[in-house]
Amino acid sequence: MKERSPRSLYEPLQYVLAGGGKRIRPVLLMLSCEAVGGDARNALHAAAAIEILHNFTLVHDDIMDNAASRRGRKTVHTKWDTNVAILVGDELLALAYGELLRTRSPNIQEIAKTFTDGVVEVCEGQSYDKEFETRSKVGVNDYLLMIEKKTAKMVSASAEIGALIGNGSRPAIRALRQYGHHVGLAFQIQDDLLDIMGNEEELGKKVGGDLIEGKKTLLLLEALGKARGRDKQLLKELVANKGCSPDRILEYRRIYIDTGAVVAAHLHIEREINRSKRELKRLPSTGAQAVLEWFAEMLLHRTF
Amino acid sequence: MKERSPRSLYEPLQYVLAGGGKRIRPVLLMLSCEAVGGDARNALHAAAAIEILHNFTLVHDDIMDNAASRRGRKTVHTKWDTNVAILVGDELLALAYGELLRTRSPNIQEIAKTFTDGVVEVCEGQSYDKEFETRSKVGVNDYLLMIEKKTAKMVSASAEIGALIGNGSRPAIRALRQYGHHVGLAFQIQDDLLDIMGNEEELGKKVGGDLIEGKKTLLLLEALGKARGRDKQLLKELVANKGCSPDRILEYRRIYIDTGAVVAAHLHIEREINRSKRELKRLPSTGAQAVLEWFAEMLLHRTF
Repeated sequence: MKERSPRSLYEPLQYVLAGGGKRIRPVLLMLSCEAVGGDARNALHAAAAIEILHNFTLVHDDIMDNAASRRGRKTVHTKWDTNVAILVGDELLALAYGELLRTRSPNIQEIAKTFTDGVVEVCEGQSYDKEFETRSKVGVNDYLLMIEKKTAKMVSASAEIGALIGNGSRPAIRALRQYGHHVGLAFQIQDDLLDIMGNEEELGKKVGGDLIEGKKTLLLLEALGKARGRDKQLLKELVANKGCSPDRILEYRRIYIDTGAVVAAHLHIEREINRSKRELKRLPSTGAQAVLEWFAEMLLHRTF
Repeated sequence: MKERSPRSLYEPLQYVLAGGGKRIRPVLLMLSCEAVGGDARNALHAAAAIEILHNFTLVHDDIMDNAASRRGRKTVHTKWDTNVAILVGDELLALAYGELLRTRSPNIQEIAKTFTDGVVEVCEGQSYDKEFETRSKVGVNDYLLMIEKKTAKMVSASAEIGALIGNGSRPAIRALRQYGHHVGLAFQIQDDLLDIMGNEEELGKKVGGDLIEGKKTLLLLEALGKARGRDKQLLKELVANKGCSPDRILEYRRIYIDTGAVVAAHLHIEREINRSKRELKRLPSTGAQAVLEWFAEMLLHRTF
């Protein structure tokens, strides 16, 4: 991509793609391909596509969230400007399709449809997320619907696309899609949990960002349902003020622990992980299947 | 789409799709399908896709251009906000792929690739367009490259996709792609010309918008090359000031006429239309081919 013009587009684009990340979606995609007996090398273009797509969502979400930094570096709209970030995101989405369409598979149309359905739901999920910031009544089920769309659907699509490229049987494709769904939910809830309970050094960012921004995380919603008295009052203030100052973070963390919101979040994660492992049992016992099980297990214990 | 949630996403999205427009791309796509002997009904999903895609570019371009209105209605980022407009654009792009992928054709992968290449070039073209606003040295060839990417490529892709759906021969597909390329260039230059020489009532908008915004249109670039003395000075001021006040529009129109820039633009259009018609001669003589010829001819004389 080095020689492509205009530089005003491709320089920030390369900056984004060089930013790293956990690469969870492409790994899941390739493992899912192998888990149905396919050759993961056939899934390389799709794996790249799903990671490029993920970067598209990050660039546009960062504009909407006014996020100044990501992965320890300035965001595109901060380093350049909003117009550049809009265009870079659009181009990343197009490039993602470009990569995906290099896949050779008799299932290419279904693969591209699965991918597209995922993009649609990511947009819907982000809309809910933004809507919830200003809506006062948000329940745990609203939250679960939102993360299902914003996060879980594309993780699920990654697993499904891998299985489609590997020419898996219908039951195997279904099992992997469901596996991805549950893992995706667990992953997002874990993200919320780490934001407040995590270790700053391991996370590479400050703890409590969601509280400062007043994000309606599972922890906040669970705590709102469980708290009484002064704690309840403080949580309502957090919602009314759409966030809190950094010096209040430890107090809210205490409330999350005392009300049992932290335990509730852990239970959510555990339930989703158990469900994901149940889906894996429907697959033949292979190395890839074992890695997928390890992967789910690892999510339970991840610290970054 | 009526029942889809969240409303915060689908309400502005429906607003965009209800906004009308000339529907040039879908018409070209369906005619191209027929021109190679295909059934235009098979091209309906792709035709819808190309129009939805066009709307995606308009929504995002309007953010970048700070455009307050389009087709006589408020733009999305004005009626709602920038975040909504970013998401609506993203979703439109995904929905465009969703429609496209409903196409039944053995060429579906090539169709989707052509579509994707078009999206990439639209992003590149828009990047050049924004870049040119602040770059002082822009030549006619830079301009032509920009509109080739921003406008002509997707018109060309429309014709090519229609021909692919109609299972046209390779020479027929190529001829229609080239036809679309030339028609697309002519269309954009005509757009520039109408912006300053058109009739406000027929256009449905004020004349001279490009001058006020200081857009480096073909007219401006041709005039810059041809003007001498005070006229040249005035053009340089326009560039330096990145636009002019509305009361200067008539003076600049006079300069465009006196320098021969208007004639030069007309010659560009005529050349591209003639080239497009030459491509049509490679196709069998059908009703669709005749309509495509009329279509090119009409562009030469369109007033809105």
